Amino acid sequence: MKKTSIIIILFILFRLGCFAQNNLKQHYNLMPWPNEITESNAKFLIDSAITISIIGKDQGRVRNASVNFLRRLTNRTGVFINEGFPIKTGKGSIKISFETIAKLSIDDDESYTLNINEQNIQLTAKTDVGILRGLETLLQLTTNNETNYYFPGVTITDAPRFVWRGLMIDAARHFQPVDVIKRNLRAMASVKMNVFHWHLTDDQGFRVESKTYPKLQELASDGLYYTQNQIKDVVNYASNLGIRVIPEFDVPGHASAILTAYPELGSKDGYNYAIERFSGVFDPTIDPTKDITYQFLENLFTEMTPLFPDDYFHIGGDENEGKHWNENKNIQAFKQKHNLKTNHDLQTYFNIKLEKILNKLGKKLMGWDEIMTPNMPTTALIHSWRGENEGLPKGGTLINAAKAGYKTVLSNGFYIDRMQSVDYHYSIEPIGDILLTAEERANILGGEATMWTELATPLTIDSRIWPRTAAIAERFWSKKGINNIENMKLRLKDVSYKLEELGITHLKNRDVILRNITNNQDITPLLDLLKICEPLKIYQRNKDGIEYKTFSPFTLFADACSSDAEDAYIFNTSVYEFLENQNEDPLNRLLKYLEKWSGNHKLFSEIKSNPKLKPIKPLSINLSKTSQLLMDILTRKKTDKNELNILKEALTTLNQPHVDVEIVIYEPLNKLVDYCEQHYVTP
Amino acid sequence: MKKTSIIIILFILFRLGCFAQNNLKQHYNLMPWPNEITESNAKFLIDSAITISIIGKDQGRVRNASVNFLRRLTNRTGVFINEGFPIKTGKGSIKISFETIAKLSIDDDESYTLNINEQNIQLTAKTDVGILRGLETLLQLTTNNETNYYFPGVTITDAPRFVWRGLMIDAARHFQPVDVIKRNLRAMASVKMNVFHWHLTDDQGFRVESKTYPKLQELASDGLYYTQNQIKDVVNYASNLGIRVIPEFDVPGHASAILTAYPELGSKDGYNYAIERFSGVFDPTIDPTKDITYQFLENLFTEMTPLFPDDYFHIGGDENEGKHWNENKNIQAFKQKHNLKTNHDLQTYFNIKLEKILNKLGKKLMGWDEIMTPNMPTTALIHSWRGENEGLPKGGTLINAAKAGYKTVLSNGFYIDRMQSVDYHYSIEPIGDILLTAEERANILGGEATMWTELATPLTIDSRIWPRTAAIAERFWSKKGINNIENMKLRLKDVSYKLEELGITHLKNRDVILRNITNNQDITPLLDLLKICEPLKIYQRNKDGIEYKTFSPFTLFADACSSDAEDAYIFNTSVYEFLENQNEDPLNRLLKYLEKWSGNHKLFSEIKSNPKLKPIKPLSINLSKTSQLLMDILTRKKTDKNELNILKEALTTLNQPHVDVEIVIYEPLNKLVDYCEQHYVTP
Repeated sequence: MKKTSIIIILFILFRLGCFAQNNLKQHYNLMPWPNEITESNAKFLIDSAITISIIGKDQGRVRNASVNFLRRLTNRTGVFINEGFPIKTGKGSIKISFETIAKLSIDDDESYTLNINEQNIQLTAKTDVGILRGLETLLQLTTNNETNYYFPGVTITDAPRFVWRGLMIDAARHFQPVDVIKRNLRAMASVKMNVFHWHLTDDQGFRVESKTYPKLQELASDGLYYTQNQIKDVVNYASNLGIRVIPEFDVPGHASAILTAYPELGSKDGYNYAIERFSGVFDPTIDPTKDITYQFLENLFTEMTPLFPDDYFHIGGDENEGKHWNENKNIQAFKQKHNLKTNHDLQTYFNIKLEKILNKLGKKLMGWDEIMTPNMPTTALIHSWRGENEGLPKGGTLINAAKAGYKTVLSNGFYIDRMQSVDYHYSIEPIGDILLTAEERANILGGEATMWTELATPLTIDSRIWPRTAAIAERFWSKKGINNIENMKLRLKDVSYKLEELGITHLKNRDVILRNITNNQDITPLLDLLKICEPLKIYQRNKDGIEYKTFSPFTLFADACSSDAEDAYIFNTSVYEFLENQNEDPLNRLLKYLEKWSGNHKLFSEIKSNPKLKPIKPLSINLSKTSQLLMDILTRKKTDKNELNILKEALTTLNQPHVDVEIVIYEPLNKLVDYCEQHYVTP
Repeated sequence: MKKTSIIIILFILFRLGCFAQNNLKQHYNLMPWPNEITESNAKFLIDSAITISIIGKDQGRVRNASVNFLRRLTNRTGVFINEGFPIKTGKGSIKISFETIAKLSIDDDESYTLNINEQNIQLTAKTDVGILRGLETLLQLTTNNETNYYFPGVTITDAPRFVWRGLMIDAARHFQPVDVIKRNLRAMASVKMNVFHWHLTDDQGFRVESKTYPKLQELASDGLYYTQNQIKDVVNYASNLGIRVIPEFDVPGHASAILTAYPELGSKDGYNYAIERFSGVFDPTIDPTKDITYQFLENLFTEMTPLFPDDYFHIGGDENEGKHWNENKNIQAFKQKHNLKTNHDLQTYFNIKLEKILNKLGKKLMGWDEIMTPNMPTTALIHSWRGENEGLPKGGTLINAAKAGYKTVLSNGFYIDRMQSVDYHYSIEPIGDILLTAEERANILGGEATMWTELATPLTIDSRIWPRTAAIAERFWSKKGINNIENMKLRLKDVSYKLEELGITHLKNRDVILRNITNNQDITPLLDLLKICEPLKIYQRNKDGIEYKTFSPFTLFADACSSDAEDAYIFNTSVYEFLENQNEDPLNRLLKYLEKWSGNHKLFSEIKSNPKLKPIKPLSINLSKTSQLLMDILTRKKTDKNELNILKEALTTLNQPHVDVEIVIYEPLNKLVDYCEQHYVTP
């Protein structure tokens, strides 16, 4: 399907959807949208007298969340709250009660009910984690008029659709320090996500301190790794937010870093293993035929598993192309001896040995969907990353796994590092209309957004994760029928800026990069460009992984840009509306943009140039040129072939990828040119 | 001296200074300014072939600094550098060599020489820390034209004037997490500061994990404290940057938190000790007459001193008003028995006991200047915080201490939380023309900027520290004669924005707060207001410490504002220039501002109001009104008594403190009104 058609369809869906989902109260910026919500006319005033009281044993998590709730509320509203901590009587104006402490497992109950009256608020839940989810809902309800902040009178009963609502962060390709992880954990909790999958090892680095095998961090991390104390700190921090932590130690492929430290585990004798600086799939692979391999992994896992209390332990297992196995005679002999026909069989052999090691350590094995082979025990959890877009039938490995009796989690469709639109990710329906038995359905635990970091540093990672992941969180939490894109976008705008409260840097670091690019000159013209540009998608930036090294600059224009360019969305919608109905209103809206863009290069050219700015210049020139021409034609409603040709040429130039971004108003501009050609040409 | 006269004098000084210090190369944005610099016409091109080689044993610190240098250089320039790490041959285009490893003590040699030619760069130093200082200079020299980045050909020989160039951060009043500390350490290193003084305990919290006395963090920190592992991590991080860490455990006053955990150490039986939520000087004081006090402190210090390898250990010792001592009969009896006439004598008794404990633990005692009493051994280091502005003779306790044979460090004049201008702090000359013997002079080790955090949270602390502290760093490093304010300001503008590279949030978090205040609407009108407003100075905000609690909102307009409001500076300069010479040029400049401000309230009123925004409205209205009136008069060069009275009234209203800020264009506006009255009144 061509891009234009998608946009037109989305636009129509939007207009239909506005009526179809009228039951969504558009004036509440809740995300994820709760199961049931009813409203009254009551208003609970947020003033200095607000207090919280907690009924429930072991109040660690809830007390912590309540204190943070009060801090966030006071900073959001400016209200000087008298009591900065939960009070000891049961008479708080916000009354919290719960029964048990969640174990942080796939069996947790996260439901809650929230009842807001004029005088008090009641938040109840089975578990402490349910309370955490409810407190986030309450905070999202903060509303104001000119003189007061208040919570609107609503009754909400809520529970998640899926029990596994995850975000994976790759800390291997670019190391992400503890503060990056913590702020993302806070953001996750704010949209009720509950699984943090920590991709800790890969070709580009081994990121955990090992006391058993210290060469791992000494030789294979460039000094960028988490100490065991930091790991414990993060796991504890996550637990306080009701978030489970699943570590991933990727084997037997993606192992350049491990083999840099311990080459004796490698499949190719004499190979010069080194930390990988580029991106992609590489050859270094652990040798699954050696005893020392299993000694090493058992010792390593024995050291690592106590750091991660969760039931599951992710061993990666993906993208092993087996090149070094093929080149190793001993491995070939081993395969023959053990009647392992393919490398896939050999890897299954390896995985099953790992499964036993992990079981002994009280853990269940989780791995990317390549581990799902006939002999793999169904106690393993299958992480589905391949679906229709990798050429598989509908439902992909997720449905296969569920039908084969494996518990499974979906990431296909949620690779947020591909820089696709929030519309795309939000529209992914994990199960859809595929018929499953109750048991099969129960095997589908949920999903994970995956943030691979070949191109994301601590400076930019937040803008790659947020706000899109909030919409994905809604996909995992809310009912299947909550799928109106336009309504989601309205709410997302508010959620996005409120993520700043939690320290998320997606908005502010954009300006930091632009100040860097301009050497601290006026960034307005770059901002206006940025609002219609998006980084190249689906791995078209850094194609084949050989342009950027891990230590290349990631402070370029593409790094400041992000998905869902904000002006482009409004402009494009206006264009399609105009093309549909030829009304003045959308025409004026789009003309306003054309006017702004036509003048933008003048401002751009006032910035003293430099080598970082220079490559952006053609984009700026062509945008102004195209906009000016088009604006002139649309205004005077008259043109000729010659002028149109100049316009088309300018437009073609504009559509060339520049500085790793694409200009996402190209298709609508093209449609407008077609329109002019059809309606305004005079011979 | 009145404020107006100061501004006029500063302005004249600026104009004189431009000629007087022509030898300062204004085109290099170096800060602190080096001892000697000569230039050639050479340019060392920054391209992908740039490499670093290091000659010197134990390259830990230098290697780390070199890698960071390459990352910062690549991100600043956008150049894809081939070699992301120092190369192993000695043939790098940047050749680094040093002799020894600095011990991180007051005897360290931090000198270096830097020589930049067309083909290579030579950086040599006695110690590894000298290399770190030189690498920062080199980075600051990064220059560009339209097509290239390069280092200009210069030869620099450099060494600090003072060996103690510190920043104190108060982590007690508002806890400052590890990432706040680390980014500030990076910023400190970038301007060659070398002492981080960590104020860890106070009435509002005890911020270090103690295993010996766990109630300290359990009962007296609200859960906000550094684990011992985090302390080690920070100390190690600082050491890698060539920064010493001095911990402060403030006793016997400022002890509410300690006594909340261990009330048996208190001076008042039955007193209900609690973590303090307000600011100020409070009564809870440790009892210096009990044996358990010294057992406690010896045990605590025995546990703490190994965490902090520095020679010095700060015991506070300030602001004990002795109220609880006076109210305790046992203490009074103890004083009589030991012939201690005053509470000050009693505190000396206490300090001397502490000094012995610390000596036994291999530490030297450091304390605020109250500890300087006749019996105090001269091995103690006196931290001077009181000077002329506290009614002392010129030179204050600093000179007294130096003359009395104590080593001493100056903070008087460098209390950056007082929100005074950078001009003020930069103009503080520690020694001035006071005559000292060589030995006395040698006792003056340097100074420390002090960042108390009653009103500063992790969100705002950077904007309270930076960029002013960079100018203070120059005061401590550069020669006494480097004191031209205007030149400093030019360089500071560049330094300020480059602090963002290191993660300093002073620029970006301003916008975060304004987005919060506007509920994510257009922040431009607030930004324009902010650029002429400064938070109330010298503790006029939160007067007597009773308006703000530690958990009050710190996301208000005053929190977005900072010292040295940028538009105010340019406007005020233009006004004084116009008043001096009546030229069109400054008149046009100032009229441009008046025009902007007169239109600003219209934009402001387009923001949908809310309770946080509302109190700012009068400021916005009055600014627009005053500006419009004044602009009209200045343009038509004619007015009458009536109009002038309206203007004066508007101006008076404008000068009322609103929302904890002062509008810092008031005096020049007033002068302009006087001018209009003298020149433009027609009867």
